[in-house]
Amino acid sequence: MTDTTTLPGAVRSPAPRITGPADLRGLSRGALDELARELRARLVEAVGRTGGHLGSNLGVVELTVALHRVFRSPHDRVVFDTGHQSYVHKMLTGRADGFADLRREGGLSGYPSRAESPHDLVENSHASTALSYADGLARAARLRGEHDRHVVAVVGDGALTGGMAWEALNNLGGLDHPVVVVLNDNGRSYAPTAGAVGRHLATLRAGGGGGVFAAFGLAYLGPVDGHDVARVEEALAAAKALGRPVVVHCVTEKGKGHPPAENDPVDHLHAVSAPSASRGPGWTSVFGRHLLVLADRHPDLVCLTAAMPHPTGLTAFAEAFPDRVLDTGIAEQHTVTCAAGLAMGGLRPVVAVYSTFLTRAADQVLMDVALHRLPVTFVLDRAGVTGEDGPSHHGAWDLALLRGVPGMRVAAPRDGARLRELLDEAVADDGPTAVRFPKGVVGADVAAVDRLGRVDVLHRPSRRDVLLVTVGGLASDGVAAAVALAGEGIGVTVCDPRWVTPVDPAVVALAAEHRVVVCVEDGVRGGGVGEAVAGALREAGLSRRIRVLGLPGDFLPHGSRADILRMHDLDAAGIARTVARFLPGWTS
Amino acid sequence: MTDTTTLPGAVRSPAPRITGPADLRGLSRGALDELARELRARLVEAVGRTGGHLGSNLGVVELTVALHRVFRSPHDRVVFDTGHQSYVHKMLTGRADGFADLRREGGLSGYPSRAESPHDLVENSHASTALSYADGLARAARLRGEHDRHVVAVVGDGALTGGMAWEALNNLGGLDHPVVVVLNDNGRSYAPTAGAVGRHLATLRAGGGGGVFAAFGLAYLGPVDGHDVARVEEALAAAKALGRPVVVHCVTEKGKGHPPAENDPVDHLHAVSAPSASRGPGWTSVFGRHLLVLADRHPDLVCLTAAMPHPTGLTAFAEAFPDRVLDTGIAEQHTVTCAAGLAMGGLRPVVAVYSTFLTRAADQVLMDVALHRLPVTFVLDRAGVTGEDGPSHHGAWDLALLRGVPGMRVAAPRDGARLRELLDEAVADDGPTAVRFPKGVVGADVAAVDRLGRVDVLHRPSRRDVLLVTVGGLASDGVAAAVALAGEGIGVTVCDPRWVTPVDPAVVALAAEHRVVVCVEDGVRGGGVGEAVAGALREAGLSRRIRVLGLPGDFLPHGSRADILRMHDLDAAGIARTVARFLPGWTS
Repeated sequence: MTDTTTLPGAVRSPAPRITGPADLRGLSRGALDELARELRARLVEAVGRTGGHLGSNLGVVELTVALHRVFRSPHDRVVFDTGHQSYVHKMLTGRADGFADLRREGGLSGYPSRAESPHDLVENSHASTALSYADGLARAARLRGEHDRHVVAVVGDGALTGGMAWEALNNLGGLDHPVVVVLNDNGRSYAPTAGAVGRHLATLRAGGGGGVFAAFGLAYLGPVDGHDVARVEEALAAAKALGRPVVVHCVTEKGKGHPPAENDPVDHLHAVSAPSASRGPGWTSVFGRHLLVLADRHPDLVCLTAAMPHPTGLTAFAEAFPDRVLDTGIAEQHTVTCAAGLAMGGLRPVVAVYSTFLTRAADQVLMDVALHRLPVTFVLDRAGVTGEDGPSHHGAWDLALLRGVPGMRVAAPRDGARLRELLDEAVADDGPTAVRFPKGVVGADVAAVDRLGRVDVLHRPSRRDVLLVTVGGLASDGVAAAVALAGEGIGVTVCDPRWVTPVDPAVVALAAEHRVVVCVEDGVRGGGVGEAVAGALREAGLSRRIRVLGLPGDFLPHGSRADILRMHDLDAAGIARTVARFLPGWTS
Repeated sequence: MTDTTTLPGAVRSPAPRITGPADLRGLSRGALDELARELRARLVEAVGRTGGHLGSNLGVVELTVALHRVFRSPHDRVVFDTGHQSYVHKMLTGRADGFADLRREGGLSGYPSRAESPHDLVENSHASTALSYADGLARAARLRGEHDRHVVAVVGDGALTGGMAWEALNNLGGLDHPVVVVLNDNGRSYAPTAGAVGRHLATLRAGGGGGVFAAFGLAYLGPVDGHDVARVEEALAAAKALGRPVVVHCVTEKGKGHPPAENDPVDHLHAVSAPSASRGPGWTSVFGRHLLVLADRHPDLVCLTAAMPHPTGLTAFAEAFPDRVLDTGIAEQHTVTCAAGLAMGGLRPVVAVYSTFLTRAADQVLMDVALHRLPVTFVLDRAGVTGEDGPSHHGAWDLALLRGVPGMRVAAPRDGARLRELLDEAVADDGPTAVRFPKGVVGADVAAVDRLGRVDVLHRPSRRDVLLVTVGGLASDGVAAAVALAGEGIGVTVCDPRWVTPVDPAVVALAAEHRVVVCVEDGVRGGGVGEAVAGALREAGLSRRIRVLGLPGDFLPHGSRADILRMHDLDAAGIARTVARFLPGWTS
């Protein structure tokens, strides 16, 4: 710690000042205990203020302290799988003060960040990747003759439900280089760890030996109590000395030392939101509630989740229809192809997944669902700009990705009423469909003044200068922009295609009635809806100037959703400004 | 068989006529042996004439016969992983005569095809998916109360190096429904099965018990000799009776019964090409040779392959630098992230992979390589239209997919000289790059008349009506079209951007000198290079009519590459026709 704050009312010596891992090495057992208490207090305090991941970080306090005492980061390479468990690592590598601005724009990232520290290597926080990085880092060290460079991967038990981890284990098992796999086994992914892996780890926790790890050719040490710094250190030191890939099985408790997190059955304290003034139901809960209606209407409807039943809105459905929901583990590839199998078998699967994680199963969506033209509905939560969770959590690529999938119809509801309506239409479709919506609170319903084909017209002035095509929740900003521009004498028709790709012929027909077309979407411009509209006009032989307003083809930093959208002119003012500039300024 | 052809010179009773699986059930042991010999003769004869997968099908003759005697397809669901092992299944389900036109346009597909038969379920032939389909099919049967419906997945040992299979095993292990996993263990993927899985299966072959399958909660039967119909039948019948997920471990020999395939160390007879008149080096071999030059120039260069060292051109490199090549198994996700780790560790990885399989690792390219801006080069073989291997083997999506990856530069060489040059540039780049080329023979070099920025101008008449932007090998067709159109008084400038995305500013500058722009690419139009060029012109405020000529957003059937390209106007005549129609006919 770079300051010495202790728990309020605590009567004990101040925790040691830690400015970097080296400061950890001379500490007594008593000082280490004091440090652990201090770290927990800081975690609870900081996350309570800014939001962030609490339970997982409370669970790795001792493990992370031990890690930095045994290994010499950054010379030794430490990779955290799902980097949201790296807060303690950040505190121990000189960034304790930064937690005041955790996850805020310009502040400390909630994930490892190479810009912040040489101790951070991997910024991607999609699960099950750490072992593959470790394999590559270890092979690089061996080929470069860096025999004293150890590689450590910290992975949760949940990450082992992801197949990529097994691909890596298949390769690591034959490697002649020290790779230490710290298995942080708290029995949970987000939900309790699904399937055979969870059951097998339980037998290992009971002293069952190396099990599948030994079968895959890795050494195995443990189980050790992950909250006993001395025991963890001992195991890590033994692992370090082995000179070959080894699993150190640490048994930890998510939320350890903070009773509200320890006793949280549905894991609300996995991630904590910052206190907020926003009110009203979220997109997720509108989906979750409507799912119950759909379940009654379609007795063949089943739901799948990749380890996130609660955050994707399936809790009520799972309680009402426990047989009709399947938690597959952190295994998006299997989830999608299992859904294909369920559909082949005569059921109507709904895959509820965060937008960013669908990329994991791009091939399965294409080759397993779409090639067989199966009626699977993907419900993509956290689409577009996600906010505080940073570059690997934004759902900016889904529209571009799904647009390329033959036969896939993609819906982007603009409000709660449309979410229900589009879910109805999606589940009644005989081919693959996707319904995508952002994180956060649903705005007020935006009424249509007309419907052409499947397209809602939201605003139609008599003067027809501009056709504004909006995607999803950006509709209300589009209407506000149109109203503002009416005051400047610019006539803007606003339409919401509802089904954004393939492009509805009605959008082309509307475009023909206007001088120019502007498309706004909260996804990457390259390959997205705006380009699809431009392509549809081209193929219809209709020459209209088009402006596409969307996200750039870069990784977006963390920050609030509203701020990031505003920064890219994806708010009412930005849309109005863009249209006004575009209309007269065009050079033909 | 629907006819009774026997091996030339064979002195034995004719093989039994098999018009469907029911015909198999009353056969004597002797008749079954005769049938197996006949099936092998037909395989060797048919594949020798039309090309196709030989070794894998010779290896599953008895296994497939036994399968159709024990299970009642199509009521019982039989899913073949990597459907190229389904030829025997096709012969036994009424399609023996169709092998005369195997893999030809309008003829029998080299993979399962639902249009051909109700016995075929899964057309996708990317590996490691069958267990996930089986899980879905079994859960659907259970939920629908179809308790007598068995589900069978036939998977190779190589498929178990793919993580998706482990995701499925994690789920299958807890399932209360009969799922029979027929493990066709021939010790090979394309190359010998990589890593710990291969070693572990060897211990099971030696009688080591259920091993990891038991740990994952599946029953295990075996090992059985996969070439003894009676033994396989016995095991399958026992598995069928178990009423829970079970692995039947069949040990087979790839190429069995055909000495040239049995004795083929580098597995040339995995897939056989049809006799062909085409001559000259292929793209793959130009890459493979140039890799040796690059290896000398860059001592930090390492190569990765997902189980296909020979078909991706790495054989010579692997012989010269055995320490610098890594076969990761059929594990594209791990391959890409391991490459990211190697790059973080200071090496210069080249990932050699078929274009169609890169989609498997879309998330890893985006979040592991690109997010960290690592210098990894993807060499995509079999890009664009692949030909005879059908819908799941065309490489039609790579351009659209990679275009969306921030910082990724994508090259499409038009000829052998450019392939070498672009590989040089790619490997010298400090960020992620991809070089993509098609299957087949490289055409003659196409000289440039000028270079602007990184863009080669191939043809520049004085009259500047049309800018034709060509991708890769379509350049020569573009030049031929331009020459033909010159005769009609249409001036067509042809440029090859070499680096096709991001769009080079020189392409925009060239477009400004012409009335209209036509882009031709052998990838899907939606989201591809043509749209990227259109977007670049829009963002530069340049209004030019654009026509994009590429592949439609549908799955393409099997057929010859030349035929499929011609069908989509992607040959000289089609390009010339498109340009001629487009230029005068545009309605402004």
